[in-house]
Amino acid sequence: MADRKHVVIVGAGFGGVRLAKELAKENVRITLVDRHNYHLFQPLLYQVTTAVLSPAEIAYPTREFFKNFKNVEFFLAKATGVDQARRVLQTDHGEISYDYLVLSAGGTTNFFGNASVERNSYAMKTLQEAITLRSHIVHEFERASKKTAPAQTDERRRHLNFVIVGGGATGIEMAGAMVELFSIFKKEFHSLDFNEVNVTLLEAMGSVLPMVPPDLQQHTIDVLRKKGVNVRLNTAVTGYDGNDLTLKDGEVIPTKTVIWAAGVRAQDFIKDCGGEVDRAGRVIVEENLLVKGSDRVFAIGDCASFMHGDMKRPLPTVAPVATQEAVQVKQNIMALIAGKTPDQLGKFVYHDLGAMATIGKGEAVMNGPMPVLGFNLKASGFFAWIAWMFVHLIRLAGKYSDFTVSVKWIWNFFFGTRVARIILSKME
Amino acid sequence: MADRKHVVIVGAGFGGVRLAKELAKENVRITLVDRHNYHLFQPLLYQVTTAVLSPAEIAYPTREFFKNFKNVEFFLAKATGVDQARRVLQTDHGEISYDYLVLSAGGTTNFFGNASVERNSYAMKTLQEAITLRSHIVHEFERASKKTAPAQTDERRRHLNFVIVGGGATGIEMAGAMVELFSIFKKEFHSLDFNEVNVTLLEAMGSVLPMVPPDLQQHTIDVLRKKGVNVRLNTAVTGYDGNDLTLKDGEVIPTKTVIWAAGVRAQDFIKDCGGEVDRAGRVIVEENLLVKGSDRVFAIGDCASFMHGDMKRPLPTVAPVATQEAVQVKQNIMALIAGKTPDQLGKFVYHDLGAMATIGKGEAVMNGPMPVLGFNLKASGFFAWIAWMFVHLIRLAGKYSDFTVSVKWIWNFFFGTRVARIILSKME
Repeated sequence: MADRKHVVIVGAGFGGVRLAKELAKENVRITLVDRHNYHLFQPLLYQVTTAVLSPAEIAYPTREFFKNFKNVEFFLAKATGVDQARRVLQTDHGEISYDYLVLSAGGTTNFFGNASVERNSYAMKTLQEAITLRSHIVHEFERASKKTAPAQTDERRRHLNFVIVGGGATGIEMAGAMVELFSIFKKEFHSLDFNEVNVTLLEAMGSVLPMVPPDLQQHTIDVLRKKGVNVRLNTAVTGYDGNDLTLKDGEVIPTKTVIWAAGVRAQDFIKDCGGEVDRAGRVIVEENLLVKGSDRVFAIGDCASFMHGDMKRPLPTVAPVATQEAVQVKQNIMALIAGKTPDQLGKFVYHDLGAMATIGKGEAVMNGPMPVLGFNLKASGFFAWIAWMFVHLIRLAGKYSDFTVSVKWIWNFFFGTRVARIILSKME
Repeated sequence: MADRKHVVIVGAGFGGVRLAKELAKENVRITLVDRHNYHLFQPLLYQVTTAVLSPAEIAYPTREFFKNFKNVEFFLAKATGVDQARRVLQTDHGEISYDYLVLSAGGTTNFFGNASVERNSYAMKTLQEAITLRSHIVHEFERASKKTAPAQTDERRRHLNFVIVGGGATGIEMAGAMVELFSIFKKEFHSLDFNEVNVTLLEAMGSVLPMVPPDLQQHTIDVLRKKGVNVRLNTAVTGYDGNDLTLKDGEVIPTKTVIWAAGVRAQDFIKDCGGEVDRAGRVIVEENLLVKGSDRVFAIGDCASFMHGDMKRPLPTVAPVATQEAVQVKQNIMALIAGKTPDQLGKFVYHDLGAMATIGKGEAVMNGPMPVLGFNLKASGFFAWIAWMFVHLIRLAGKYSDFTVSVKWIWNFFFGTRVARIILSKME
């Protein structure tokens, strides 16, 4: 017992949980550290924001994964740094010493240093942020409904202008789900003129969804526009004071709601872990996933910067990268325990599974090699949407969620039910 | 259109929603005012606290009830008083003038003036309170799991001591659901000794559940004790500083969690509505449900004090009183509009439907006249539990909730699944 090696994992996201599950079967002791007591299924966060799903359906108690593994201990704390010389992880609840450490702390929103945007816009990376944004969106309609006098038109329109910044998967999915949510509001806010409601998607580049081919990008834009989303490309944001969003060309959009889905960076503490970080704050890892310069600290997923061979940019911040890296790290840790040296460890090779995104009910795009089918598949429309649902359901954490989420999606598809439209006040 | 009478209803609880639904079919204009945008199914609030149900399953968007009734307007605001002379309701979003006003604002927690208890204990009347308490309960186990050193025994036990004050339906149901929740934690917190976990139910009177006969009271106590709840009768609380709960006889219980389920009173603003209030702050109403001294302001439900004839105490603060009163008030408002005078209005007669309470999975007590069956029914055990579920399901707001709540209950019964164990931090 006493001589079992202690592996400390920071972060219970896709990578951290997968790694802990893999290691749990081995003769090691594992401490999984996270600042939340749940594993968050982040790809569906926008469905909490738009009241399709309840928080508990995408947030799974981390301890439940490991109830049958007594060698896994969960520790609720926020990591603050690593002292590699003393082999300790620093947290807001004290230090934890390790034999091997794996950083899988995920990412946070990247505002690219724009303080006014960071202060006033809504991010969508944590469950609390999603709940806060959901409350805010519903509340804006309540506020607008109190300002129906002609003299209040400007103020009312500001409440009914919703801007999403960023044309990646999150921005696209959010835009599609928002217009559908608003079509439900249309039946309930009798005093509002819904011609005054606007959903705008701003993208700084020339197209959306960089991970799919140009024809699917165009298809996505066409579908969003048909749904009523005002898609604007080559449009960069320079500032936002909470009332007016300023664009690079000087144009001003009056709005109380800017949803920032334009960038991801690593958590701040990653720079204090004794490694070297890239521009997005991600720690640079060797091909064996060891943090550069370390022989017992690994990093995986969104907080790691993996760029080797002829790669032009680091691996993307998506779940399959994190889970595949977890499997490699597990093998490498067991190899180190068995006496191997760092240069003898296996090198990580990423198998791209492609990309997919929904654009509201009944519409999605997908592109990528289908390992099961053995060929590349590019698809859009209803079929891609069914595939999207299927892929997401089998990736959800539990049978229970699989079931209730399926039910909610079916209900939503046929009846447009969105029950979770609760304004939760923090002041109460 | 213009000469349609304007009925303002304060509060979208059982009484307010029922009344608005009844009036919606008539040629009147209705404004329904509530400080929340949802109708809360309060009897199941303890299931949110104990992670059985998600908030959205018991909180139904109020506007959805009235989407097909354009004569009903919802107004999100907090009522602050009534100026009967000027016929206006005062709110934190301005004044609303009325032809007829109905106060159905519900109740809030009654701490009976004990400031230390009010400041440091957890109440369970609002959705936000239930979510906050749920987070706290789960968090206490996380905190205890970090204090496993022998020197930390006192501190750890304080985290694992949970005290519920009040042996009414809420206290009983909460106690039963809590011990079941903790049996799930037992599988997941490997480092804790669950002999150190205590759930105590304190009741100042000589028995629990005052609305059922003595044998069912005793049965309830027996079942709770068998489940491991430390039921203490004739035990009054005098103070609580957040660390130590002090009893009347001087005994001190070290605990970080006191759940106050011992009393209900009216919202503060009820005393500012131009009527006369009783000791619990409820406005005194005539037999026709008009506020004493008024000819156009009614009050129903938990904020009204109805005591006439040979009644020894006002009608209880339960949903059936509110909904039955709503039906009477609708008739009386229509009669006033038709030209009747207050003395010609119908008098309210309450039809007692009995009482029921669950004591955890598979156990409940029920007592009361069964109007459908035509006789008095007193029952306990599994049958009463099935009846309890049936009654609550048919009272839930929507088909959607009926379905998912049934699913969750079945899941919970067979597998003990409690997924909503999320610690939501307000600080994030």
